[in-house]
Amino acid sequence: MAEPQIGIYGLGTMGAALALNMVEKGISIAVANRSPGAVPPFLDRAAPLSGRVSGHDDLPALIAALPRPRLLLAMIPSTAPMDAFLDEAIPLLDAGDTVIDAGNADFHSTRARAARLAEHELHFVGLGVSGGEDGARHGPSMMFGGSTESWQGLEPILTPIAARFGEDACVDRMGPDGAGHFVKTVHNGIEYADMQMIAEVTELLRRGGGLSPDQLADLFETWNDGPLGSYLYEITAQVLRESDPVSGGPMVDAILDSAGQKGTGRWTVIEAVRLGQSATMIEAAVAARAWSAEKPLREAAGPALGCARDPLEIDPDTLRDALLAARVLEYAQGFRILAAASGEFGWDLDRARIAEIWRAGCIIRARLLDDIAAAFHEGAPRGELLLSPRFAEVFSRGIPALRCVVAQAISAGHALPVLSSALAFWDTMRQPRGSAGLIQAQRDVFGRHGFDRVDGADIHHGPWWDDR
Amino acid sequence: MAEPQIGIYGLGTMGAALALNMVEKGISIAVANRSPGAVPPFLDRAAPLSGRVSGHDDLPALIAALPRPRLLLAMIPSTAPMDAFLDEAIPLLDAGDTVIDAGNADFHSTRARAARLAEHELHFVGLGVSGGEDGARHGPSMMFGGSTESWQGLEPILTPIAARFGEDACVDRMGPDGAGHFVKTVHNGIEYADMQMIAEVTELLRRGGGLSPDQLADLFETWNDGPLGSYLYEITAQVLRESDPVSGGPMVDAILDSAGQKGTGRWTVIEAVRLGQSATMIEAAVAARAWSAEKPLREAAGPALGCARDPLEIDPDTLRDALLAARVLEYAQGFRILAAASGEFGWDLDRARIAEIWRAGCIIRARLLDDIAAAFHEGAPRGELLLSPRFAEVFSRGIPALRCVVAQAISAGHALPVLSSALAFWDTMRQPRGSAGLIQAQRDVFGRHGFDRVDGADIHHGPWWDDR
Repeated sequence: MAEPQIGIYGLGTMGAALALNMVEKGISIAVANRSPGAVPPFLDRAAPLSGRVSGHDDLPALIAALPRPRLLLAMIPSTAPMDAFLDEAIPLLDAGDTVIDAGNADFHSTRARAARLAEHELHFVGLGVSGGEDGARHGPSMMFGGSTESWQGLEPILTPIAARFGEDACVDRMGPDGAGHFVKTVHNGIEYADMQMIAEVTELLRRGGGLSPDQLADLFETWNDGPLGSYLYEITAQVLRESDPVSGGPMVDAILDSAGQKGTGRWTVIEAVRLGQSATMIEAAVAARAWSAEKPLREAAGPALGCARDPLEIDPDTLRDALLAARVLEYAQGFRILAAASGEFGWDLDRARIAEIWRAGCIIRARLLDDIAAAFHEGAPRGELLLSPRFAEVFSRGIPALRCVVAQAISAGHALPVLSSALAFWDTMRQPRGSAGLIQAQRDVFGRHGFDRVDGADIHHGPWWDDR
Repeated sequence: MAEPQIGIYGLGTMGAALALNMVEKGISIAVANRSPGAVPPFLDRAAPLSGRVSGHDDLPALIAALPRPRLLLAMIPSTAPMDAFLDEAIPLLDAGDTVIDAGNADFHSTRARAARLAEHELHFVGLGVSGGEDGARHGPSMMFGGSTESWQGLEPILTPIAARFGEDACVDRMGPDGAGHFVKTVHNGIEYADMQMIAEVTELLRRGGGLSPDQLADLFETWNDGPLGSYLYEITAQVLRESDPVSGGPMVDAILDSAGQKGTGRWTVIEAVRLGQSATMIEAAVAARAWSAEKPLREAAGPALGCARDPLEIDPDTLRDALLAARVLEYAQGFRILAAASGEFGWDLDRARIAEIWRAGCIIRARLLDDIAAAFHEGAPRGELLLSPRFAEVFSRGIPALRCVVAQAISAGHALPVLSSALAFWDTMRQPRGSAGLIQAQRDVFGRHGFDRVDGADIHHGPWWDDR
């Protein structure tokens, strides 16, 4: 049997899927799991694909089976279990070995772990893997963060298993330490915003426009064939088409309207705010999930405050144009966070390449990403998607459409948190002269905080201080 | 000379103002400053008020001058300088002494410092002080966080110097360790949202309605006489009325529209998101400040994207009703964060009392706070301001007004980030059945995350998994 090229520790849904993907692509692997009982069923699943798998009872055996310099990938929760795993693994590894965390880690943890492993002359890779179980099994989009040496070792394994956009493998090195996990975090933040926009327009068209789930499925299928084409639209159509085996009614109506979240959306918001960037569309989407969990409050509020919404007529093509503009704005906010983090952490992130590796395999894959990659390659003014001539047409059609949709919805009592925040972003960012002069004046009045003047004069307090 | 009751370390703007306030109220104090040169001028300022001040050259001398158990208040930056101060002070203090941090500290730091001092049997108090320099000098609102013993020691000093609402002194113990600084942080978050709303409507009425700064000053004065009465409206009128000594034009036009922020707004957002609460109005206000700082981008975007805004007619009374409803919603979001933190950190925060101590002295003091305190005293349903019958009238007039204002502004191209997020919050929270069922379905399709059903049936995945 061939010597294993990489060890996989953790055979849960995602770990097993990634391992099977490797096996199928001809990569020799060794596997183990914290509960060794998971190993034999995995070997049974892998057997029809190849013989290039060895199973091991525990972590020491797995590490012993790997040739040096070792590549050891862990797909386990990136919280305390990851630290416990490192505690056990570090003494068993040798200088030059690489440990890969392929879970959704907080990039601050990844940075700390990379520093810890560096003390032992070990490489630590934070590998963002997107695409869910299907992606991991058949071709995920992968965002690598780690040393160039570890990238050289891993690239021959990651490239064959990655999703393909044409000939291009959707994997690359983003930068050192936490860069990969951070890019994945922002990916998920964008995913939150996109999902919430879909939920908003679906609700609007259903409660305000009277469309049935089947009609909505038709619409998302149509949209999916055009510039809005994307994985999330595809599965939205699929979900809306599905019947509930229990009641026979629409499946979506059988599901409790209380959405979970695992942290990456919140991390995106927190880090954006720390960086002085505000990703309001992602903030609104994270808020909407939090509010969905406030079901008891909403059930009390409905009767108390009134929950009526007026019918309205929204032209689907108008909505399509609005959604496309909002999607560009959502990416613009995401890429702004990436740019800010790149500066803060010295990562030198390549935004064109990030857009490229998101074009296939990941949850936010969308036709638009090819344009975004092109816009960054062409060099958007000031590096801002907002200002790229490539999207001028999208905005000139989409912004008036967005304005029309949001104004109508607001008048009729429908909630569009993400779509309305998209417009607030647009309408703020296009004003050379904003309203913050007043805020600076207030801050000077109550806190003597001072301000700069438009004429550059060296006077930093208002006359309200003269007679005090 | 009387023995000093408290030592004050740090004679900057806020420290000196607080110390003079104490002297004027008959409290004997001892003072010192890192640069001892600040002490003699302070003594000169204090002399006409009283002889009950002693100045000291350094921290050891200050500590030596205090009777035990000592009360030592530091008004210095709550970051590294506070830790350096503690490093120096701790060895000089004795068990039972109390150190007070009266700056704007991150409450996580306050919790850590309280734990550190507890190891030395010292009390650590995080004291939130609001009201700016004027407040500190003549009566601030103060939010105390610390042990009950340290409250007993400090209460006789804080009560005389606090602002008064009628007979009630605007100071109280919020809870242990970081509770006071956290309440102050949320206070500032609300302040951000209120200031941004003011900026939004001022801009709307000026650019859309054609009102001059003087006309706007009239309007804010009128509003200030009614239910919107508040310190921020008062100083807004003052600012809008002021002329620029340089140009002779409106002072507000001379100030660069790039607003600063010192951290408390961001901390509010970050902590709210961590707690699973989303304070979208505060998020939008923090975002607006961040965007104001993007002046070069906005100057490039104006010509590129077009910065036209259409004129519109907004009835000032409609706007007044909208602002009042939005102000209740902004407080509702703030008090939701306080409730969540209270549960998370075991603080048992008394929201009625918090509203009471915000009624005078602090930056967000407002007529509305008396109603909010009453609503909490009466026991709002589920503890939610949104559901308090006391605000039913405010909402029944104000929400349609808000809807009208936001829809008109959006149609005409004016940005209202906070006001539109207020409406999104309202329109989401009043729906017993929301749109998150679709999001749960999507999450199950791509990540097998599972969901609960509305009928409670023990089925947690959709039929889309059946044939895979």
